[in-house]
Amino acid sequence: MSVINSAIIVLAAGKGTRMKSARPKVLHELGGKAMLGHVLASAAACAGDKTVAVLAPGMDDVAEYALSHGATHVAYQKEQNGTGDAVKAAEELLSGLDGVAIVVFGDTPLVTPETLIRMKQACAAGNDVVVLGFQAEDPAPYGRLVLNGEGALVKIVEAKDASPEEAAIDLCNGGAMAVRTPLLFELLNDLKPDNAQGEYYLTDIAAEARARGLSMSVIECPEEEILGINSRLDLAVAEEIFQDRMREQALLNGATLLDPSTVYFSHDTQLGRDVLIGQNVVFGPGVKVDDGAEVKPFSHLEGVHVGAGAQIGPFARLRPGTDVGKKAKIGNFVETKKAKVEDGAKISHLSYIGDARVGVDANIGAGTITCNYDGYDKHFTDIGDGAFVGSNSSLVAPVSIGAGAYVGSGSVVTKNVEPDALAVARGKQFEKKGWAASFRASKEKSKSS
Amino acid sequence: MSVINSAIIVLAAGKGTRMKSARPKVLHELGGKAMLGHVLASAAACAGDKTVAVLAPGMDDVAEYALSHGATHVAYQKEQNGTGDAVKAAEELLSGLDGVAIVVFGDTPLVTPETLIRMKQACAAGNDVVVLGFQAEDPAPYGRLVLNGEGALVKIVEAKDASPEEAAIDLCNGGAMAVRTPLLFELLNDLKPDNAQGEYYLTDIAAEARARGLSMSVIECPEEEILGINSRLDLAVAEEIFQDRMREQALLNGATLLDPSTVYFSHDTQLGRDVLIGQNVVFGPGVKVDDGAEVKPFSHLEGVHVGAGAQIGPFARLRPGTDVGKKAKIGNFVETKKAKVEDGAKISHLSYIGDARVGVDANIGAGTITCNYDGYDKHFTDIGDGAFVGSNSSLVAPVSIGAGAYVGSGSVVTKNVEPDALAVARGKQFEKKGWAASFRASKEKSKSS
Amino acid sequence: MSVINSAIIVLAAGKGTRMKSARPKVLHELGGKAMLGHVLASAAACAGDKTVAVLAPGMDDVAEYALSHGATHVAYQKEQNGTGDAVKAAEELLSGLDGVAIVVFGDTPLVTPETLIRMKQACAAGNDVVVLGFQAEDPAPYGRLVLNGEGALVKIVEAKDASPEEAAIDLCNGGAMAVRTPLLFELLNDLKPDNAQGEYYLTDIAAEARARGLSMSVIECPEEEILGINSRLDLAVAEEIFQDRMREQALLNGATLLDPSTVYFSHDTQLGRDVLIGQNVVFGPGVKVDDGAEVKPFSHLEGVHVGAGAQIGPFARLRPGTDVGKKAKIGNFVETKKAKVEDGAKISHLSYIGDARVGVDANIGAGTITCNYDGYDKHFTDIGDGAFVGSNSSLVAPVSIGAGAYVGSGSVVTKNVEPDALAVARGKQFEKKGWAASFRASKEKSKSS
Repeated sequence: MSVINSAIIVLAAGKGTRMKSARPKVLHELGGKAMLGHVLASAAACAGDKTVAVLAPGMDDVAEYALSHGATHVAYQKEQNGTGDAVKAAEELLSGLDGVAIVVFGDTPLVTPETLIRMKQACAAGNDVVVLGFQAEDPAPYGRLVLNGEGALVKIVEAKDASPEEAAIDLCNGGAMAVRTPLLFELLNDLKPDNAQGEYYLTDIAAEARARGLSMSVIECPEEEILGINSRLDLAVAEEIFQDRMREQALLNGATLLDPSTVYFSHDTQLGRDVLIGQNVVFGPGVKVDDGAEVKPFSHLEGVHVGAGAQIGPFARLRPGTDVGKKAKIGNFVETKKAKVEDGAKISHLSYIGDARVGVDANIGAGTITCNYDGYDKHFTDIGDGAFVGSNSSLVAPVSIGAGAYVGSGSVVTKNVEPDALAVARGKQFEKKGWAASFRASKEKSKSS
Repeated sequence: MSVINSAIIVLAAGKGTRMKSARPKVLHELGGKAMLGHVLASAAACAGDKTVAVLAPGMDDVAEYALSHGATHVAYQKEQNGTGDAVKAAEELLSGLDGVAIVVFGDTPLVTPETLIRMKQACAAGNDVVVLGFQAEDPAPYGRLVLNGEGALVKIVEAKDASPEEAAIDLCNGGAMAVRTPLLFELLNDLKPDNAQGEYYLTDIAAEARARGLSMSVIECPEEEILGINSRLDLAVAEEIFQDRMREQALLNGATLLDPSTVYFSHDTQLGRDVLIGQNVVFGPGVKVDDGAEVKPFSHLEGVHVGAGAQIGPFARLRPGTDVGKKAKIGNFVETKKAKVEDGAKISHLSYIGDARVGVDANIGAGTITCNYDGYDKHFTDIGDGAFVGSNSSLVAPVSIGAGAYVGSGSVVTKNVEPDALAVARGKQFEKKGWAASFRASKEKSKSS
Repeated sequence: MSVINSAIIVLAAGKGTRMKSARPKVLHELGGKAMLGHVLASAAACAGDKTVAVLAPGMDDVAEYALSHGATHVAYQKEQNGTGDAVKAAEELLSGLDGVAIVVFGDTPLVTPETLIRMKQACAAGNDVVVLGFQAEDPAPYGRLVLNGEGALVKIVEAKDASPEEAAIDLCNGGAMAVRTPLLFELLNDLKPDNAQGEYYLTDIAAEARARGLSMSVIECPEEEILGINSRLDLAVAEEIFQDRMREQALLNGATLLDPSTVYFSHDTQLGRDVLIGQNVVFGPGVKVDDGAEVKPFSHLEGVHVGAGAQIGPFARLRPGTDVGKKAKIGNFVETKKAKVEDGAKISHLSYIGDARVGVDANIGAGTITCNYDGYDKHFTDIGDGAFVGSNSSLVAPVSIGAGAYVGSGSVVTKNVEPDALAVARGKQFEKKGWAASFRASKEKSKSS
């Protein structure tokens, strides 16, 4: 097949009032990525010549997002005059196009690249208008797609206008279309706003195309792909579908998820083979877990690489810039940030390791804190290979602990420690015999008086 | 409509043996509130003149609970002689009532105020007996409600007595009733214990009413509202329904819940608009989260106010008396209790802040502990605006850190620190060169010997 | 009934390629116990004379597991020539058996002891061949069981060979069989590999038995019991079924689970009556919780005994060897390991207590760490009854804190403390007035320059 000239138009001008949010609707997220980002990613996989996001005036943050996530152009719909009017906003930008234009919606984030590619190819193969359809579980609210005996699309009937025979059709209009261009804009320019709202509807070009005797066809996709997000309830449903897609893929790739429904993926999470993920694990963006690593329950990772055979959690919080080496261990109530934890190193409990390197096979005792911040700047802590940092130590950065050095428990280390040395920095113990007994007696006495 | 004289009778004398619990059945909780509390709250919204809880003798804790949660009176059913007998226990207390009495069950916590109000109004509008009905998904175990052509209630047929036509009816008896009073008690006094158990059944007043030619009608509600709790399995089902109601309401009000099914509400949780709630968040009683605040995954809040734009979690545990200011931040593995955290203050990691104030824009380093307890009393820690508390510090209360003061990492602060001063309280660092190498050598030697 | 001579043959030679795992399929776990362990446990309850696990050559780890979990023998199937061939591998080991042999699969971990016992008894009662059947929700992929008017099994029809009448049968072949032995091996020896794969199928003995006029019957079980695990998706489904079984049992026994679907049991978890389990609690192997104890949300327990009325969590991590006394308390961000926490003791926050005893009613302050590890050995910390350990203390083991002693906050305790004494080991506080103001000024200056 020769290369198809094509463009994708993403309609994203909707206000999304029912979201009850100060944030534009298409910037609400699924799997940590804006809805619009999902649609643009599918569009990118479809490899059009241009991708135009159609916005309402003033949507500067959406424009910025679109242009930095794959949209080549942004067009503005001056007034909210319906979907047909919105597509027209892209006309000038696509004036040179002789090929296929695909129209999709910025608030249907679950549409897949495969579906868009099939639509494009069907259009390129000789269908003037290709409509995206789906078998609806409950078709009642949707426009029905009426096909002829050869499977070609005859017309789209609105739900309220459907005859009993038409109402019995399960194949419904998913909204998205692929249309020969410049034909698309000719059809749009003939549209009439003959409806209660006085708006121009993209769907109506099917009737126009039929009147002209053009060829039309339908590409089907699963109903979930056309799920449009209009409320936070819709968003929650879509998030669950997205997560289920990610979970299934992880299982098929050879990871064990002890309870898949409690593992939350980001759009870009990568899990290796024989990775074991416990219950209640949240992956923020940018996580890669190598083969054989284990992430125990109640862990939260974001912007992190976990090396092969490493053990994380439970109750671990790994923040961006953490790089965990092979067979290293990060245990409960540990937070790391910008931390290179080298192979075999252990940070087992109740520690904060930030802006730091922990050398090969080093052991960090419970309660160790890298004091990396002075209120203005962040400073670096370097812990050498095989070093042993005693529990409850404070490492006041910038500071380095030499390879093989030993820091006594409870020390506040402010000066560099030489390799293989012992460093201790704590107060001297003294004791007052009988003090606690007297203290209790006086407390009891004051309580009873 | 004129004011309706009315009363509500809540039947709560059941032992609840199948709960296998030392706790009375109606004090088991949904969303952190006793079942009986839910029923009494719905009753309160129905605004009757009196609310009578009918208990078994010896249920003192239930009586105390009822009287402190909206019941105006408590009556005792001497012996467990059936629901009809239980209602009679309220007769004397309602002797002056000329109006409507509504009978509900203390173990059906999901009945809504709207349903009770509709029952009351139907009764006041001229129906002598109003029965609560529901369309059962599986009607087999329930009594069926037989209506005539006008929709009036003809009779209630027990499941075992139903003819094939009657068995085909889906409309079932939900148990609750609204009855003209004093008529209610006249009907009850005519009841006969003509059944295997020899008990008096409230339901049987319908037959009595029919025999007298009185008017009867049905008010329908969803099946979940009549869910009666007899076991912990039932309780778990009811809790889930309750939670789903709360989740849907939060979404509709403009909060985002990343996975609604993992957010647990208390009966009184309040979330503002554009609040973002991560996965696995538990709200105990008394939480209010203002607009734009974020509660990250694995957080547990109880008795807490979170100001606008504040960030909480992940892995934060906010206990009662915590008041978080605007844009303040409480991070991972942090516990707060009776803590006023002022606007812009940060407690980012691994800290315990109890009985304390943290001033505007103050920064609390990782591992900071307010030592508020001496074994007998709790003491207060005051941290001034803009103060910086270095990591792993112990603040031994009562103590104050002045505004703008700086506490060195790892300090144990026992005396007040002046504003803008530096305070350090830690041991001096010393080093023994080569000690760690010798230590390792001796350990390795003893291992191999 | 007289004792039945019987044996159980567990087929476990499958490679499990679709698991995409280096681990043998039957060693993947449900509720923390290998699938094979579940099947062997059911087999053990069925009390056969011998239990033979049939493996592929080289499966040494599976052999070791089987023999240490109830299998009396291991047999090896030389080549993967089908299930019939696999069973034949056990022939020699069962040469002396005159009774019943039950054949089950190592990858159907949900089969119950009751089902196996019913199969054995049906076989002993005179049925030569007993086939395990189930009513399939979707029978399409399964072989159908054709019964005669008396309920005896006539034949097993493969899905692809079923006539329309046969295809309408919902009763399907579950795979497991109980067969009179040595008859079983006679039938197997007559099998022909008449199929596309050229393999010997156990199922085909039914046709052979029919040809001989032997009596056959079906024992039915719920579909979930025959769920075979071939992928990690299957494993996740089976884990959920297993967990639901455990959850229902816990509820019926009188525990409250606030959200049962978020509580994860091990195969051996024991919960007492009136135990309250919050949301998101994970039980590893070896946990027993006594009556009236509470485990709050986000807790992780493994190898732990929790005494009556104790309170655990939220965010508690109790590791093996923890024994929590009556009414003791372990709070948030606390880790324990090999710790005897006696009655009424409190470890409320942010602590690590390992290799230690905490005496009756002792109070451990926030941030306390037992420094139990020196890089080579673990040492013991003994904290006496009624002792008070101030916050942020480090107890450097081996060390003992006497009964009733008091450790000042922030101390690093390296020497034993006498009973009723006060011990303090921390630096002296000093202050530099105005230092913080100067520091800020210099930082601000360097930022602006």
